[in-house]
Order: sequence, then C-alpha cells, then structure tokens
Amino acid sequence: MDIEKTKEYFRQMLRRKDFMALKEEMSKLAVQDVAEILNQMDEKESLLAFRLLPKDKAAEVFSYLSDKIRTAFSQMIEEDELKSLVEDLFFDDKIDFLEEMPANVVKKILQRTPESERRLINQFLQYPEHSAGSIMTIEFVDLKTDMTVEQALCHIRYTAPKKETIYTCYVIDQQRHLLGAISLKDLVLADPSSKIEDLMDKNIITVRTDDDQEYVASLFKKYDLLSMPVVDRENRLVGIITIDDVVDVLEEENTEDIQKMGGISPSEESYLSQSPITMAKNRLLWLIALMVSATFTGRIIQKYEDLLQTMVILAAFIPMLMDTGGNAGSQSSTMVIRGLALGEIRTRDAFKVVAKEFMVSIIAGISLAGLNFIRLIAIEKVSTSIALVVSITLIAVVVMAKVVGGLLPLLAKIVKIDPAIMASPLITTIVDAMALVAYFNIAKLFLKI
Amino acid sequence: MDIEKTKEYFRQMLRRKDFMALKEEMSKLAVQDVAEILNQMDEKESLLAFRLLPKDKAAEVFSYLSDKIRTAFSQMIEEDELKSLVEDLFFDDKIDFLEEMPANVVKKILQRTPESERRLINQFLQYPEHSAGSIMTIEFVDLKTDMTVEQALCHIRYTAPKKETIYTCYVIDQQRHLLGAISLKDLVLADPSSKIEDLMDKNIITVRTDDDQEYVASLFKKYDLLSMPVVDRENRLVGIITIDDVVDVLEEENTEDIQKMGGISPSEESYLSQSPITMAKNRLLWLIALMVSATFTGRIIQKYEDLLQTMVILAAFIPMLMDTGGNAGSQSSTMVIRGLALGEIRTRDAFKVVAKEFMVSIIAGISLAGLNFIRLIAIEKVSTSIALVVSITLIAVVVMAKVVGGLLPLLAKIVKIDPAIMASPLITTIVDAMALVAYFNIAKLFLKI
Repeated sequence: MDIEKTKEYFRQMLRRKDFMALKEEMSKLAVQDVAEILNQMDEKESLLAFRLLPKDKAAEVFSYLSDKIRTAFSQMIEEDELKSLVEDLFFDDKIDFLEEMPANVVKKILQRTPESERRLINQFLQYPEHSAGSIMTIEFVDLKTDMTVEQALCHIRYTAPKKETIYTCYVIDQQRHLLGAISLKDLVLADPSSKIEDLMDKNIITVRTDDDQEYVASLFKKYDLLSMPVVDRENRLVGIITIDDVVDVLEEENTEDIQKMGGISPSEESYLSQSPITMAKNRLLWLIALMVSATFTGRIIQKYEDLLQTMVILAAFIPMLMDTGGNAGSQSSTMVIRGLALGEIRTRDAFKVVAKEFMVSIIAGISLAGLNFIRLIAIEKVSTSIALVVSITLIAVVVMAKVVGGLLPLLAKIVKIDPAIMASPLITTIVDAMALVAYFNIAKLFLKI
Repeated sequence: MDIEKTKEYFRQMLRRKDFMALKEEMSKLAVQDVAEILNQMDEKESLLAFRLLPKDKAAEVFSYLSDKIRTAFSQMIEEDELKSLVEDLFFDDKIDFLEEMPANVVKKILQRTPESERRLINQFLQYPEHSAGSIMTIEFVDLKTDMTVEQALCHIRYTAPKKETIYTCYVIDQQRHLLGAISLKDLVLADPSSKIEDLMDKNIITVRTDDDQEYVASLFKKYDLLSMPVVDRENRLVGIITIDDVVDVLEEENTEDIQKMGGISPSEESYLSQSPITMAKNRLLWLIALMVSATFTGRIIQKYEDLLQTMVILAAFIPMLMDTGGNAGSQSSTMVIRGLALGEIRTRDAFKVVAKEFMVSIIAGISLAGLNFIRLIAIEKVSTSIALVVSITLIAVVVMAKVVGGLLPLLAKIVKIDPAIMASPLITTIVDAMALVAYFNIAKLFLKI
C-alpha cells in the first residue's frame, strides 16, 4: 500500500465532500494505516475523516494517533464525544492517552468517569515509567478452578469482545490470587467436561508491578510468551502484559542503548518531532563533559612540548594513534555492552572478557603494527627508528584500548551504572590520554631524546 | 528460579543415579530453563539427563539447545534415536537444526526421511539467510471458504497438536491461493453455522519468501501481528512466520546495527563463544581501513609543520578539537541511523535532517565555544587570540561534524549501503581531517602567521 497516494486520495475525497467514498476506502485499510495518514494531515481534515470511522474502529485508530493529533482532537471535540471515545479504548491505551494529555483534558475526562474506574485509573497513572505496571492492561480473561472447560469457553465467549487477548487465560481464587494459566489452544483441545484445575499450568512466570520493563522483555524473549501475568506483593493478579507492547519496549530499550552509546541523553520522541533546542540539550551535556576531559590530553601534549619541538614529525602520527586507539577501544566496549544487554555476558565473566580482549588485541595490534611499519617505511619514507616507535606504540595502544574498552562496561554494571554509557565517546577520551603518554615515553626511550 | 542452584541439583541427582528425582525436577521446569542447564553441563551428563525427558518435552528442549551440545548429541546417539528426535521437531526448528549440523549428520537424517518431506526440506534449506523463507514454518491451520465455523473448529481440534499456532487460521482455495485469514477469537465468538467465507478478513498483510526479515519485522511491529502468511509469486500460501521468531530477528538486527556502528563486522555468535582469531578478523578490517584513512590527518599536520613549529601551543588543542568534532558528528549519525532503522526518517527527509542538524550544531557549537573560551582564559591562561582561534574553530568543527554526521547515513541509504556503517569510527576520521584544516586556516588568519 502506498501511503502517499492514499493520503492524496483522502484529501481529494474530503475536498469533494465525497464522504461515502472516503468511508469505504477507510474500511479497507488497517487501523494502523488509517492512523498513519490521519497523523500526516491537517488537524481539521484529520478530525473530519476520523469522525467518519465506525465506533469500534475509531477507538482502535485513536490509539495509534500521534500525541499531537490526539491533543488537537481533544481540544476540538465536545466533552461528551471525547468521553465516549475514551470509554471505547482498551485500558492500557486509555492510560497511555491520559499520561500524555495536558492536565485540563485529563481532569475533564476523569470528572465524568465513575468512582471505581477513576480510582483504578489513578492507581495505574502512578506506576513508575518503564515499570511492568506502566505497560500492563486489565483486559484479561480470568477463570476459576472449579469451572469445567465448557463453562470456561462459555465465559470466554461472553467476555471476549472486551478483552485484549483471550489466548492465555488466568485462573484465580476468590481473593484474586493467581493459581495457574491455561491457553485457549488447550481449552479447545480438551474434553469439555474436564475441570480447569486439572488442566491448568501451575508453573507460571510472573512479574511484579514494579519490575523493570527491560526485565519483562527479557522473559518474553526467553520463554517465547504471548502474554504474562503481573501480580502484586500478595501474588494477586492485577494485570497482564501482551507481546505487542513488549515488542515496542524492546525497540525502545534498543534505541535508548544506541543513543547512550552515541553520547546522547535518550529521548523517546522521534527524530523529526524533536525541537532543535531539546536536541541540543540532549547532546550538550556529553559534549561538554567530553570536551573538558579531552583537555587532559592537551595537558599531556603541553607537558611534552620540548620533545615535540625537537621532533615535529612525531605530531603527524598523533591523530592516527589516537583514532586507532579510540576505534579499537570502542569495538571492544560495543561488543561487551551488547553482550551484557542480551544477557550473554554476566559480571562474573569479567576475567574471561579481559583475557579474550587481551588475546584479540595482541593479534589485532601486531597485525596493524606490522602493516603500519611497512607503510611508514615504503610509502611515508620515515626513518626506521620513527617507524619503530610509531608501530610499537600502536601495539601498546590497541592492547590498552581493548582491555579498557572491555573492562569499563563490566565495572559500570558492577557499580550499577548503565554500561551503555561506557561507549565510544568516553572510551575515546580515556584511550587518547593513554595513547599519548605511551607514545611520548616510547619515543623518549627509543630516540634517546 | 536460580539456574546455578538447579544445575548443582541436577549434577547431584545424576551422581547419585537418582533418575526419578531428576525426572520429577525437570517436569517442573520450563523447557527453556532445562535447555539452559543442559547447555552448561558436560556433554555426557547432559545427554543422560536429556534422555530422561518425556518424548514431547524432549523435542521442545532440543530446539533450545546450543549448536555445540546438539552436534555432540547427534554424534553420540544412534541413527534411529536421532531420526525420531528430529521427526518430533517443529518444521522451522528442524530446518534450523539441519542448517547448523555438519554435512554427514544432515545426510544421515535426510537419507531416512520420506521423499516428499526431503524435497520440502531441501527447498527450505535453499531460502537465503535473513529472508522471510528462512524463518517461516509450515505448521499452520488452513481452512476452506465453504467450511462452517463448526467444521473449522472441528478441523482445528483435530490438527492443533501438530501446529505451531492456531490463533490465526488461513483460508485457501484448491490451488492453495491465499484468500483470507480468521482469528481463533473470531471463530470462538461466531455463530457455529456461519460460513468462513463471510467471516474471514480479506485485507491481509503478506510477505514473499524472498523478502528481507527486517522488513517482515517492521510489519509485525507496525500492525501488532501474532503471525503472518508467506506467499510465493502466485500468491500461494507456503508458510507462516510467528511472533516469537520475529522477536529474535529484531534482536539480531539490532545487534547487527550496533556492531556495525561500533566498526565491527557483524557476527551472530555470542561474545563468549567466539574465538579470539575470529574476533580479531571481524575487527581488523575496519581498524586497517580507518588507520590508513587516519594518515590523511597526519599529512595535514605535516603540511602545517611550520605553523606548529612557531606555535607549539596550537598542538595542545588538537586532541580536544578532534574529539569534540568526532563526538558531535557521531551523535548526529547515531540519531539518523537509528531514525532510518525505525522508519522514522526517510531519504526524502534529507533536507529536513540537514536543516535540523545545522540548527542543533549552531546552538551546541556556540554554547561549547563560549564555555571553552572562558575556560581557556580563566583556567588555562592562554592569550585571548589563541582562545579566540580555538573557540571559533570549535564552532566550525561542531557545525561541520553534525551536518556531515547527519548527511552521510542518508547518502548511504540512497546508494543502498547500510547506513549503520556511517557511524562513529568513519565519521570521526572524516571530521578529524576537516577539523585540522579548519583549525590551521583559522589560526593563520587570526594570528597572521
């Protein structure tokens, strides 16, 4: 499907006031595609098209609209219409919406919500960001142990339209304690007269409302789950998390890691919707920190000013040594940061990591130095002693860079700092300083200055 | 659950030959946890425990074992046992297993497989790596248009045990052309006598066998799917892809991007299982390329040797300027690479990206330069003219770095190179050279040397 063409078609239909044709076209599209087009249209046009959607599809489309368009809608439409729209949303989408809206809109909606639901909404709004509680929903199927399969299926049929998933059902007692789970597949396959108690799986993986969403995602990955129950401290079932939300969490966490590794304070907004001022703010902190720390390397150069003055040629190789060190170090830190994020490396593997990085750095360092020596002699035509100094420094730099690059993310993890921070920008600055000290000392030693 | 403790318990039971207790313990664990423990045990112990698993659980555990353990098993057990084990695997797991095994094992298994299945296996083994065909399975439920809901449910009940998912069923005609899809939820909710034809969803999202898995994953993310049909050129249904495999693809693609961004040739093996030689090989290519290109910066310094000799103090700020430029540039390229990967930025947004990066770089550059000027005067006590030269260069470097960092990934995308390559290491090298040229020229201009 071509979004651009369909958007153009939407506009034409609106201009011609051919609402029937537009309605027809929208009924053929997936809700996500309708939302994508409405997001890109003018707010008034967008609302006009949105109002043509049937009630059930409208709620679904609404949950995929951008915050910008949703805020615009909620300021353009009447309170009654807004209320009935919000009522049709799934509970987790409702919470998402309320979290993003300005306070006056939230107040307007909550005022007209019945007391019991209002209390529940307020409870959900209080779950910390990135916690299991903040991504769960309450629309699950709950069964009782003494139901038969037939009764359970009947209960599911009756309640299904309001549930986000019916493919895993949860078994609870009178006090809502979680006792087990059963898949719709097993229910469909079972003898209708058998008891839920005998069929349910009692070994279920659960999370707490305050568990981190990254931990939740790792369990979904490991156990190939479609949904997972969330319980409180007393093991009472309070909600479920579904795989579609976990996929979003995974991408969000990956984006966060990548941004941190690039020396940027993470942001959940998309690139094009961030203002230049916010972007500059998210990047300045690291730039300033790294600029200030980079001045140490300047101090080192100043300290060896006399050496440089007698052999200016040495300055020519500073960028190459610094860059190669920075690259070698960031390769190692990248591998270790990712290994830690995927759970492939644990802190107790620190020794193995250092040993491995040392081995790799010896192989890589000697190969690079050899190649570099030939290049310096044959192409750059420098003296053998200079070529030797540069090449020996290169080995030392690669070894230091890789060991430090491998070790720092692990140390970060041990002291409970996010390892993603120990990526390229920071490693580069640290390795630069070490490379310069090594370079000047090796030069002094070999050139006898 | 504590894997370490459970592993110890497994070992004790094996030593005491208390197989009943071990069997009991394994029946309580999830298949993924059993596999994790078996992966970490000695091969013989591992096989001993594996053989205690009931037939259906054994196949599931087998699909989660590491390639190392699976190869060991297939060399230790008899042909008959291996064949019956492989028979019990889901089709996609079977293909995965055969792809990883040495040729003699594959031959052994295929020899004893019936002709029709052998042909199918060979076809699947030929789908290119990372294609939709390589991650699909054939265990789906197919329905016919003229079935009633009751007949469909009956068909599902009969075939379900052998299917990977029954939650989305696909409707095909006699020639296996895909006509529609229907969820088990809709089937459970529908009137038993209604026809599949009237209930099925005809607007379905499909992929081709040769589509890239990254594209498949992006569709799952966008449309919140649990499974997706794969069709051939004639729109005949050949397989389905399920969400659990897509979650793995997402993580794999993210790992690949992160490795490329760190200047490493991507590898699918985990960090700890790669040999130092492979690791050195995966990293050397980029290190050599970047070392050679970094020598251009050396040339630039050599060119301005006279200038440096008269003002050695200038050398002291080279690392700071180079590092800040590198960091500023890699921030921009990181943001744009990720935006492209998530589909938030498209190539036609190039102008918007450059304009945004320019704005951000002006704000960031001036702030940094101001801060740096104060620091140079107040702390480093350099002359005003030097502080001015360094600070003006800083603005120029940040602007160049951010514009180049934002633009290069987009250019890569346009000429169909993976944008992830245009990350930190490459940007750093390019920006370094530009920073030096700017620095020396600004110095010449202002210091009138």
